Amino acid sequence: MRRLGTIILLFFTIHLFAQKHPIAYAPKSDFQLIQKELPQNRLLRQSFNEIKTSVDEWVGKDIDVPIPKDPAGGYTHEKHKANYQLMFNSGLLYQITGEVKYALLVKTILLKYAKLNPTLVKHPEATSTSPGRIFWQALNDANWLVYTGLAYDCIVDYLTPAEKKQIVEGAFNPEVNYFTHDMKDWFNLIHNHAVWACAGVGIVGIATDNKEAIQMALYGSNKDGKAGLFAQLKGLFSPDGYYTEGPYYTRYAILPFYLFANALNNTQPELHIFSERNSILKKALDGALQQTNLNGGFYTYNDALKDKTYITSEMVSAINIAWQVYGENPAYLPIAKVQNKVLLSKGGIAIANALIKQKDAIAMFPYKSISFTDGAKGDEGGVSVMRSGKENQLTSLIFKYSSHGLSHGHFDKLNINLFDEGNEILQDYGAVRFIGIEQKWGGRYLTENKTYAHQTIAHNTIVVDEKSHFNGSEEESSKYHPNELFTSLGNNKVQVVSVIDTNAYKDIQLHRSIYMIQLSESSKPLIVDLFRTKGAEAHQYDLPYQYTGDFIAASFKYKSFNNSQKTLGTKNGYQHIWKEAEAVSSTPISQFTFLNHSRYYTISSLTEDSTHLFFTRVGANDPNFNLRRYAGFIIRKQAISPTFLNVIELHGNFNANMELSTNAYPSVKGMELLQNDDDFSIAKIKMDNKFLVIIQYNKASTPQTKHSVNIQGKSIEFQGNYTVIWDDKVL
Amino acid sequence: MRRLGTIILLFFTIHLFAQKHPIAYAPKSDFQLIQKELPQNRLLRQSFNEIKTSVDEWVGKDIDVPIPKDPAGGYTHEKHKANYQLMFNSGLLYQITGEVKYALLVKTILLKYAKLNPTLVKHPEATSTSPGRIFWQALNDANWLVYTGLAYDCIVDYLTPAEKKQIVEGAFNPEVNYFTHDMKDWFNLIHNHAVWACAGVGIVGIATDNKEAIQMALYGSNKDGKAGLFAQLKGLFSPDGYYTEGPYYTRYAILPFYLFANALNNTQPELHIFSERNSILKKALDGALQQTNLNGGFYTYNDALKDKTYITSEMVSAINIAWQVYGENPAYLPIAKVQNKVLLSKGGIAIANALIKQKDAIAMFPYKSISFTDGAKGDEGGVSVMRSGKENQLTSLIFKYSSHGLSHGHFDKLNINLFDEGNEILQDYGAVRFIGIEQKWGGRYLTENKTYAHQTIAHNTIVVDEKSHFNGSEEESSKYHPNELFTSLGNNKVQVVSVIDTNAYKDIQLHRSIYMIQLSESSKPLIVDLFRTKGAEAHQYDLPYQYTGDFIAASFKYKSFNNSQKTLGTKNGYQHIWKEAEAVSSTPISQFTFLNHSRYYTISSLTEDSTHLFFTRVGANDPNFNLRRYAGFIIRKQAISPTFLNVIELHGNFNANMELSTNAYPSVKGMELLQNDDDFSIAKIKMDNKFLVIIQYNKASTPQTKHSVNIQGKSIEFQGNYTVIWDDKVL
Repeated sequence: MRRLGTIILLFFTIHLFAQKHPIAYAPKSDFQLIQKELPQNRLLRQSFNEIKTSVDEWVGKDIDVPIPKDPAGGYTHEKHKANYQLMFNSGLLYQITGEVKYALLVKTILLKYAKLNPTLVKHPEATSTSPGRIFWQALNDANWLVYTGLAYDCIVDYLTPAEKKQIVEGAFNPEVNYFTHDMKDWFNLIHNHAVWACAGVGIVGIATDNKEAIQMALYGSNKDGKAGLFAQLKGLFSPDGYYTEGPYYTRYAILPFYLFANALNNTQPELHIFSERNSILKKALDGALQQTNLNGGFYTYNDALKDKTYITSEMVSAINIAWQVYGENPAYLPIAKVQNKVLLSKGGIAIANALIKQKDAIAMFPYKSISFTDGAKGDEGGVSVMRSGKENQLTSLIFKYSSHGLSHGHFDKLNINLFDEGNEILQDYGAVRFIGIEQKWGGRYLTENKTYAHQTIAHNTIVVDEKSHFNGSEEESSKYHPNELFTSLGNNKVQVVSVIDTNAYKDIQLHRSIYMIQLSESSKPLIVDLFRTKGAEAHQYDLPYQYTGDFIAASFKYKSFNNSQKTLGTKNGYQHIWKEAEAVSSTPISQFTFLNHSRYYTISSLTEDSTHLFFTRVGANDPNFNLRRYAGFIIRKQAISPTFLNVIELHGNFNANMELSTNAYPSVKGMELLQNDDDFSIAKIKMDNKFLVIIQYNKASTPQTKHSVNIQGKSIEFQGNYTVIWDDKVL
Repeated sequence: MRRLGTIILLFFTIHLFAQKHPIAYAPKSDFQLIQKELPQNRLLRQSFNEIKTSVDEWVGKDIDVPIPKDPAGGYTHEKHKANYQLMFNSGLLYQITGEVKYALLVKTILLKYAKLNPTLVKHPEATSTSPGRIFWQALNDANWLVYTGLAYDCIVDYLTPAEKKQIVEGAFNPEVNYFTHDMKDWFNLIHNHAVWACAGVGIVGIATDNKEAIQMALYGSNKDGKAGLFAQLKGLFSPDGYYTEGPYYTRYAILPFYLFANALNNTQPELHIFSERNSILKKALDGALQQTNLNGGFYTYNDALKDKTYITSEMVSAINIAWQVYGENPAYLPIAKVQNKVLLSKGGIAIANALIKQKDAIAMFPYKSISFTDGAKGDEGGVSVMRSGKENQLTSLIFKYSSHGLSHGHFDKLNINLFDEGNEILQDYGAVRFIGIEQKWGGRYLTENKTYAHQTIAHNTIVVDEKSHFNGSEEESSKYHPNELFTSLGNNKVQVVSVIDTNAYKDIQLHRSIYMIQLSESSKPLIVDLFRTKGAEAHQYDLPYQYTGDFIAASFKYKSFNNSQKTLGTKNGYQHIWKEAEAVSSTPISQFTFLNHSRYYTISSLTEDSTHLFFTRVGANDPNFNLRRYAGFIIRKQAISPTFLNVIELHGNFNANMELSTNAYPSVKGMELLQNDDDFSIAKIKMDNKFLVIIQYNKASTPQTKHSVNIQGKSIEFQGNYTVIWDDKVL
């Protein structure tokens, strides 16, 4: 009698907000559609079979739900991770196949969590300020909530009210309460961790018909709109969809955004969540894809690992959901083809069919030159990608002048990176971390991430007095951002981005202008890097180029450290760098050529003052062998306001199988700065027998404003901030 | 009148030995066949079009035949190289298309050489003992003769007798005479240079109907059979077809062998040149292919560059000719598919057709475990390749115990290299050379090739007292070779090769046994490396493992050289190695794990005596940045007759996109040498909770001879040289 009463009461309680389930991941009708499509849709079937194989292995077995103990990479961490993936997949299979064994599997595991979770306290391996309970960090608990919520939603119709109650109260509530109460400051952050947390709480809310949880997920634990999904959509993206932590973390944050938004779209279409902020979630996805290399790897500025590409499940999910909610988009097809996997969803069906239909017509992802602003209002600097070349010949230069980018940001104002034909030419170290490898401190970020990878010297931008920008203070760095002076991108012969920073160093102005110049239609672009500085006193300025490739030749004499090697410095990253060779240059220009795959690259540097040059290697003070032994070329000037003029040439070809080199030597034969003051910089570069002249107005100018300079007795007029003259003709 | 007389006279002279031309590369009928096949054979057409495009660019232009001046990579070198390729290709096009412009192009260039060649003396950049005239080394002149001879042969029917005379006397005779007279000691060598020289002289002989030249090419300049093609076929290959310089140079030498043999086959089929020595040229080709990595790269022992694969034109030619003369061979198809190019020949037509026919049925090249003997009689040691795993899962271990291998040989007796899934795991440095790159000393072998790459410490074998084998003397090394004690290869659970060397060091015996053990069908093989030594006095023994991958973990404490680094030694290659860290091990075993691509590799080492361990990095004393910064792990023992017992485990998986590791820890938990004397070595290895016991009889034994050992009170009997017991059962 008592039991019956409980059931009735519960039914009533639940009924108040009850949705039809499944609904969070997809409604019943979508699952039925998948079942119908499976026989004739190869890629869908393949994706389905992958999941089925992974789940069938566990059907009927006793699934361990261990007491949390290990950090990432360790048994309990990996088991709990495997468990939520297993539950999610098994939930999908239940809905698609109707086979009860899959629902039973999910239920059995959930009931175990219902017993475990109420007993949990702070994870024994928790080292961060946001400790988890099931996992060492709360972030992973949020991952658990997202997938477990989706899984529960899939099997709601299979559960008895008593089971529902047991799971909601035992498995979910302790986690939801932990997030929204104990950890509420963290839950209310505008940060990727909180995006996961809100998605987890929100999806569980939808799955369990918990309106309160949904509201907190949408508007923060105080339901005041200062936190939660809407605030995140507003605060984490610029109006262009640039995510402030950079593309590597866009990839990571985009998944909970899309999964939660998708669930909301299914349950509260009136929120028009995918249209929010002019479809900011679409812009975020497209922007992240524009920030990938030809191999699909995300550009590795800020904390980022080099081997993450757009084949990750996060990007599969985002692209498949985007296809469904924003409509078909052929630009995604080349990526979907490489992913070779679709979601078991309406979007997945559509992509799989589109791939078959357009089989031979799939071109490359439409990479283009593009500028992103940073900051919620788009007024905190940004990132530009300058591009040239077709298909696999693509050259991409990334110029970074964004705001700090939260805790994963690096001290790298005005940094550049260069990719060519899919190869990293001037690199960003990325992050020092071996994710998912327990022996490497449980897969966490390693010490050297802060002591090296975050530091300015690990990048391709100026370091003054061997100190990192903002003296390495995240707090300081977060207050400022550089400002664009002028920009011109697109299909022009001259693309340029010119940016000024006045805060990275006190009383010093850094002004970098990157020109990407197409001298002829068939040639590789020429990159001219004009890096001006302005200060009141003499300082030591280092401009490093982290090149990748084999050292081929240097035009200057240098001294090698043959029998013993010392570090380049003692702190701010310098302690991690070996000095392999050094030179005092006295010639007007210094040239260094290296080979990467089949192409030569030469950096020609104006070194008329007594510049010092260094060839370096990462790896000092690295007792745990965490650092990769990357090479560097550093140009050092000791002066009041030195200017660095460098030309980066992409030239020639080397064919190992043919044993053949063409154009192995640079074309730059001379460089001069004819004028260089607050008003104008005029660079004259001799390329074989022709001259390239770049005239730049160093202050703000409208495109219409006329300027006039005098070059070697000849008066030249131009409009706007620059003009580039090649062989006596304006480009 | 005078002119007519000359013509008649010449006609008469030539007629005496005259062949129908073309004949050297292929007879007229073959070219006609190609013309017929072109429209319907895609790959043939593509290969034809590539050649046509490259030639058409020059038709009607004035071709420069410059006065020789530059080394490899420089203008004159590359131009002369381009010229002989252009002439050869244009000659083929003339025969296939019948278009006279192609013949004219060849003639015009040949007439220029007819003027240039008589004026030539030793090349100004010649640095070797075999100087060239057109090029800096005679070898390149030989290349020129081969291709130019073939080109001439293609256009003979287009030339007037006067033109023929002019070309023969001006372009060819000076080179032929230079080789067979001035350079006759070199011409008569049994060495790859002489193979090219004889092919050049022989092909020119065939093309110009010069019987004398053909005879010298076949039997040496003295026509006594001590040199020339037949002597080379006899002296350069073992009965298995192993070419004494190793696979990288097999690739290089095989082309002149095949081109010349093909020409002879067309003109003197009665020589049965392709059947010579039981079809030694087929064995050579197949043997070289067995010595490639999954990516087609030739194993890089001895002087070898890592980026040479079987897509080189040499291998296209050899495979296409082999198909024609030895009959179709499906094993070549996967390679031909990657080459994506065929010869314009009957063989090329056949391969292109076979590729179409077998489109979906093309498996991998049939890699297998294989032993090669070295030496003309097959009694000078050899090379074994032990293999396990299917398709892309292939694991290959190369065990080298050959003779020195002429001037390109390294001091690396009993060296091993390990490849897994196409990745180099324990590597051979190969050669220090940037071929085809002028800035790197004209593409020659660099100083560090001798001072580092040739030295023993650059390999994975024992170095005693920091001296290379044979004290680095090629002359000494060439006198000796190690001897196989016992071998068992094939589809067995236990594969083993055991070899003894008694000459690399005076009064010291080195005895290495490599076991490749398949503990279960699905697992990766386990490699047990038992390296015994026997000497009369105490010495320092170093066993390096040149690993490639990221350092993951070491089970022992070590001291890192954090702020300053010194070299490991001062000579014999040690001066090029930085000491990054060192350890004195006191535990019974020391384990080191590294990650390469998606797999973990652990070296577990028995270090019960006070072994020293080093982590090292190549790159010291390298003022021209010629060396790659490779890592090493060195095990050092100071003793009278130390034994090195190492187990190399290939384990687990790492997935960066999934952030997931499985089996990241080694299974080896303990190691013991229960017995180790002149008679028996008994190694007991604890793998998780099971034991692997290897019992080895250390002297010669017939497979039938019974042996008996006592292991911890239990008597065990076995036959032959070894038995391997896993979990109490004989494997």
